[in-house]
Amino acid sequence: MRNSYTPEEQIILNKIGKRIRFFRLESGLSQEKLAFACDLDRTYIGSVERGERNIAVINLCKISSALKIDSYQLLKTEE
Amino acid sequence: MRNSYTPEEQIILNKIGKRIRFFRLESGLSQEKLAFACDLDRTYIGSVERGERNIAVINLCKISSALKIDSYQLLKTEE
Repeated sequence: MRNSYTPEEQIILNKIGKRIRFFRLESGLSQEKLAFACDLDRTYIGSVERGERNIAVINLCKISSALKIDSYQLLKTEE
Repeated sequence: MRNSYTPEEQIILNKIGKRIRFFRLESGLSQEKLAFACDLDRTYIGSVERGERNIAVINLCKISSALKIDSYQLLKTEE
């Protein structure tokens, strides 16, 4: 897995990963159930939540749909 | 250039491309000037605006920083 992000980039990825995790837990979903709901791999969801992936918008939208939220909420800073 | 998106995915990419274009024009920037400001290629900016790229969050944040807006605004539907 490529992991050559600048500190600034890593902050962005960590923030998004935490937002996904926050909304996933709020929905009462496991990583496995979320992965199933958005047709992605559980290990992929895990790596996104850990800030290891520069996730692209299509997967971001798949995840937000499965979490029943608007995709932009995953990029917002405040809760 | 890979262009095998589903209709739903294409709608997402078109929407984001239009949002970027909207904010770019509002800032009075050419594609070239925006590209320079965010250290990306002008042809890349063009292809994102045309909905041809599944842009990842790091580039989305580079573009929003250069446009002096919050990245989540590029995913919002309303103006």
